[in-house]
Amino acid sequence: MNSPMNQLGIVKRNIVRADKAAVEKLSRFGVATVHEAMGRVGLMQPYMRPIYASAHACGTAVTVLLHPGDNWMMHVAAEQLQPGDVAVAACTADNTDGFFGDLLATSFKARGARALVIDGGCRDVKALAAMGFPVWSRAISAKGTVKATLGSVNIPVVCAGALVHPGDAIVADDDGVVCVPRAMAATTLAAAAKREANEGDKRAKLAAGVLGLDMYGMRQPLAAAGLRYVD
Amino acid sequence: MNSPMNQLGIVKRNIVRADKAAVEKLSRFGVATVHEAMGRVGLMQPYMRPIYASAHACGTAVTVLLHPGDNWMMHVAAEQLQPGDVAVAACTADNTDGFFGDLLATSFKARGARALVIDGGCRDVKALAAMGFPVWSRAISAKGTVKATLGSVNIPVVCAGALVHPGDAIVADDDGVVCVPRAMAATTLAAAAKREANEGDKRAKLAAGVLGLDMYGMRQPLAAAGLRYVD
Amino acid sequence: MNSPMNQLGIVKRNIVRADKAAVEKLSRFGVATVHEAMGRVGLMQPYMRPIYASAHACGTAVTVLLHPGDNWMMHVAAEQLQPGDVAVAACTADNTDGFFGDLLATSFKARGARALVIDGGCRDVKALAAMGFPVWSRAISAKGTVKATLGSVNIPVVCAGALVHPGDAIVADDDGVVCVPRAMAATTLAAAAKREANEGDKRAKLAAGVLGLDMYGMRQPLAAAGLRYVD
Amino acid sequence: MNSPMNQLGIVKRNIVRADKAAVEKLSRFGVATVHEAMGRVGLMQPYMRPIYASAHACGTAVTVLLHPGDNWMMHVAAEQLQPGDVAVAACTADNTDGFFGDLLATSFKARGARALVIDGGCRDVKALAAMGFPVWSRAISAKGTVKATLGSVNIPVVCAGALVHPGDAIVADDDGVVCVPRAMAATTLAAAAKREANEGDKRAKLAAGVLGLDMYGMRQPLAAAGLRYVD
Amino acid sequence: MNSPMNQLGIVKRNIVRADKAAVEKLSRFGVATVHEAMGRVGLMQPYMRPIYASAHACGTAVTVLLHPGDNWMMHVAAEQLQPGDVAVAACTADNTDGFFGDLLATSFKARGARALVIDGGCRDVKALAAMGFPVWSRAISAKGTVKATLGSVNIPVVCAGALVHPGDAIVADDDGVVCVPRAMAATTLAAAAKREANEGDKRAKLAAGVLGLDMYGMRQPLAAAGLRYVD
Amino acid sequence: MNSPMNQLGIVKRNIVRADKAAVEKLSRFGVATVHEAMGRVGLMQPYMRPIYASAHACGTAVTVLLHPGDNWMMHVAAEQLQPGDVAVAACTADNTDGFFGDLLATSFKARGARALVIDGGCRDVKALAAMGFPVWSRAISAKGTVKATLGSVNIPVVCAGALVHPGDAIVADDDGVVCVPRAMAATTLAAAAKREANEGDKRAKLAAGVLGLDMYGMRQPLAAAGLRYVD
Repeated sequence: MNSPMNQLGIVKRNIVRADKAAVEKLSRFGVATVHEAMGRVGLMQPYMRPIYASAHACGTAVTVLLHPGDNWMMHVAAEQLQPGDVAVAACTADNTDGFFGDLLATSFKARGARALVIDGGCRDVKALAAMGFPVWSRAISAKGTVKATLGSVNIPVVCAGALVHPGDAIVADDDGVVCVPRAMAATTLAAAAKREANEGDKRAKLAAGVLGLDMYGMRQPLAAAGLRYVD
Repeated sequence: MNSPMNQLGIVKRNIVRADKAAVEKLSRFGVATVHEAMGRVGLMQPYMRPIYASAHACGTAVTVLLHPGDNWMMHVAAEQLQPGDVAVAACTADNTDGFFGDLLATSFKARGARALVIDGGCRDVKALAAMGFPVWSRAISAKGTVKATLGSVNIPVVCAGALVHPGDAIVADDDGVVCVPRAMAATTLAAAAKREANEGDKRAKLAAGVLGLDMYGMRQPLAAAGLRYVD
Repeated sequence: MNSPMNQLGIVKRNIVRADKAAVEKLSRFGVATVHEAMGRVGLMQPYMRPIYASAHACGTAVTVLLHPGDNWMMHVAAEQLQPGDVAVAACTADNTDGFFGDLLATSFKARGARALVIDGGCRDVKALAAMGFPVWSRAISAKGTVKATLGSVNIPVVCAGALVHPGDAIVADDDGVVCVPRAMAATTLAAAAKREANEGDKRAKLAAGVLGLDMYGMRQPLAAAGLRYVD
Repeated sequence: MNSPMNQLGIVKRNIVRADKAAVEKLSRFGVATVHEAMGRVGLMQPYMRPIYASAHACGTAVTVLLHPGDNWMMHVAAEQLQPGDVAVAACTADNTDGFFGDLLATSFKARGARALVIDGGCRDVKALAAMGFPVWSRAISAKGTVKATLGSVNIPVVCAGALVHPGDAIVADDDGVVCVPRAMAATTLAAAAKREANEGDKRAKLAAGVLGLDMYGMRQPLAAAGLRYVD
Repeated sequence: MNSPMNQLGIVKRNIVRADKAAVEKLSRFGVATVHEAMGRVGLMQPYMRPIYASAHACGTAVTVLLHPGDNWMMHVAAEQLQPGDVAVAACTADNTDGFFGDLLATSFKARGARALVIDGGCRDVKALAAMGFPVWSRAISAKGTVKATLGSVNIPVVCAGALVHPGDAIVADDDGVVCVPRAMAATTLAAAAKREANEGDKRAKLAAGVLGLDMYGMRQPLAAAGLRYVD
Repeated sequence: MNSPMNQLGIVKRNIVRADKAAVEKLSRFGVATVHEAMGRVGLMQPYMRPIYASAHACGTAVTVLLHPGDNWMMHVAAEQLQPGDVAVAACTADNTDGFFGDLLATSFKARGARALVIDGGCRDVKALAAMGFPVWSRAISAKGTVKATLGSVNIPVVCAGALVHPGDAIVADDDGVVCVPRAMAATTLAAAAKREANEGDKRAKLAAGVLGLDMYGMRQPLAAAGLRYVD
């Protein structure tokens, strides 16, 4: 790994992406399911919201490190994007400026990218919705940015509290954004599938009026913990 | 009332609910009207937002006290829900974890509950919208929770700044959430009806170009307070 | 300009509005474009959000200075509104109370106003959406306000971080709210038109796979700044 | 209890205060100890901070309900204060205005009040520190307030998330503010004393290098929960 | 005034400063007094806090407009500072980076500046306290900034919600920061002196146990507003 | 590295700590200097504040991953602490509960730990100050926690936005907290020393009235960027 001192001003071209087939299969699951399948880790903070309802995306991460108010690296990142990628942009400080709009989205889409996840602001949201390019961001803001300072592309970044390496799998929907480390894609997929297989049966029982207290066998542990029923 | 020292680990089974007929009639009014009818009290803080647009709910409160990151009590609460209830969940600390998702919603709905109001996070929002189970929450988050610590069900709770007793009437819509104390349901209903009766007439006048300054007789008190018109 | 000591309790009746034709033409552009055309100034903070999606408004500012929890001046402002105006309300302290609802909106609309921009809360959002009166606000809240304290109408105000003089042009959409000083309307319009004229061509190139790196000639300055590509 | 509809514009003169002797003894304990003795309830939110370091106060609550930007009721409350009281002021909306300064503090002190706890702003903090009148507040702000709207004195209030009835015991120090319901003062005192009695012994053991893992017997339950030690 | 389009990249050298004698006399008053003397306007938002306790400053504003993460203009501003000035720095976006540290403070101090007010972050706070150079900021942060983008010096800025023109008088203490427009310095001074003259007498009465209710003649207006005393 | 699925419930006993001599030398530098020496990376977010003024600490990280409202792992971590360590605690969700107080501090101190850095709350701050055990935290809160859920010790954690591996060097002072990756300790030390060597000379020049504009040779690049001086 490059030293932090050398981490600004770098573009890593050859990254190893998570297995394409596994990522495609992961895309069938929601973020909550994948996060549970991961052992309840890897989730970005809940201030990351989709810019339009019912957005859903799954792909491999190309990471970007930005400086506040400066989107120069987004253009550098565009060249590194491949079909099936999701751009993941972190910033060295909390910043809500509009780093990304419809022109960049046009470029990202032409490169085959599926979405942007950005710990910063986004603009042109109406146009982005119209072209169907989903973005998860911490803010919507028309504020423009400059192109003056070097960040990096495809270094490990902390985005909205989650560590993301280039090539990791990213799943995003209405519930938030989760990062699945590249080496974990297959096992997470298996765990997610197993989890979901169980849910249909549980849902049917609950819909029929069975209580979780009984279905999950919670009455005894609750009593052991001291729960008291009073009238 | 149980002492605070005894308030954790309690489930109160027999609660007195606000008058069913009054609650049904209250459901015809919006939150803003009910809040005004109450004398401008009882409102939860505005960070409580519906997870989907145009949600509306009215019912009797079954209260839950949660610990951060732990949704065990939600399962305990399910058993106490009756048709027409709204679950109201408070947490002992600010927390945005996803305490509630589609499985719990299936169970709550099967019990006849109409909605959840939670000073915490909610997940599976797409599924919840699809099944038409409305939730007002402080956050949307995929983050899962554990089942390890006792809270309580049907004790008085402070939820998003509002005091809620079990059995109180809860009204929630796009404008927020208001709690009507059980004993106040009838008088609030009367005040809301009276208020709304006046609004149609006012609206027609205002639409016709009459100014509130004249309709409400504000010109004299404004002048008395010292308002000056300059050119 | 009136002195601050005299600024509370004033209504300025005769204000000079930005050129009507220029404002109408400005309404064809989005907030992001106008903000860029202004030289990246004049934008309100991103917490100002439309109460419903796809809202768009453009008009001349009638300003209001409110006190927290008090909407008396909104009624005073109604009388000063003319067709094509946008009311812009600031508050002397951060406050999310519901200063504005469907009755005031009915009045504002009858006066010919096109929208409200308020650094405070708004209520009756469902009704406002139904009547098509757009509002940009810092919060949605059912909380009612009193009518007890004098503020002012048509004095310069700082609203969500932007300085707004009465008569300035206001443009608002999904991306936020921007204020164009009255004297700048024509030049801003010209700059916006010029900017947009270039965008179609750029968009087509980017959609065809041309990289911004090449289209904007960024490779040399990036190299000069020290950007390194590694494998 | 008065109905909410009647709760604005009321001053309750005769309140029952927590037992004086119990309150005096409670003052020997810190907020963290009292909160634990209460069963981990009753704490205000952590944004409530003392305006100067090492402040400590304990007394019986006289409650105030304020409107944003209006401190009229503080003057009404002054008359209800008795020696040994702590004023507890809530506000109907989040507001940071400076409701309280050195003149009111002079008056409160002359009445025998020991402190103010306010879910709002405070000013003149240098003078307050000089006169030794402690305040716990959500903000420090020079912003002045008006005297125009009725709130109430000595009704139950929700202050910074905690329910406070007039006459309850309030304990406040560097760690925050806790409310002990009047009827709980004696039992809380006993529990706090018992808790503190154990702490000296524990502290000595820990200082000598004994681990909490052993002192509290945690190794077995940790192993049972599945904790694994790896190299 | 320069147009907004021309406002970035400008340094105005000749500014008219508020009357020196008036500013010196203003420095005897606290921020709360000056803010009241102004008619309760001109105050910055309460998140602006001194980096060390008991800081107090008064002087004439040299304004700076910064971009997030970029402190280049601070060096440009240094040259414009004269003895008795207070630098007032705004930023085009919310940003907490450490724009200012001990080297810049050494330079500012050598120029005769008395303080910095910055709607951004500050670092080296220990050294700044040691050298006695007070700063009011929205954050303390070690994060360094770049020198890449032009802002401006001595244009009107909105700093923490307050409009500041170059040459205005700035007063700052533990309670916050207030801006007195240049043309208002003398009248504000007179009003502040008059206000303070009355306070000594009031303080003595309140200390002697006279109630504000009586001293300010509030009992009648409270009764007229409907205040009810109950037992 | 263990997979995320296996990352909960793990205690890694053998960690490689940054070179002791390098860490001791690093402790001579402030956080701002170290952060600059690192190339402006590695800093935690500025909400991390010391619980008392003038705190300073430097040591090697023992990491802890906590769940909201649960401090069980702090006791597990105590056993892994060695003289010269700094405990660094992250939490799986934003939480301000008081995970740490004087008893744990007594234990940590007995183990030779120098400080705690916690992305959560801390209590007993008066006692901690008295015993001289510094803590950097996101909040001060008396709120107690439970001991019910497994987290981990000595896995990589994201704490307040910074990635921290066990054994990394941590430097903390009034300006914030920075993490120096273990492998970078020596080079960072050299860069910090070099940086500080230059500062004395610069400080003397600036104190003598030399402008940064001249000392840093900024006039030409500012002019090239288009800076205009106007009168």
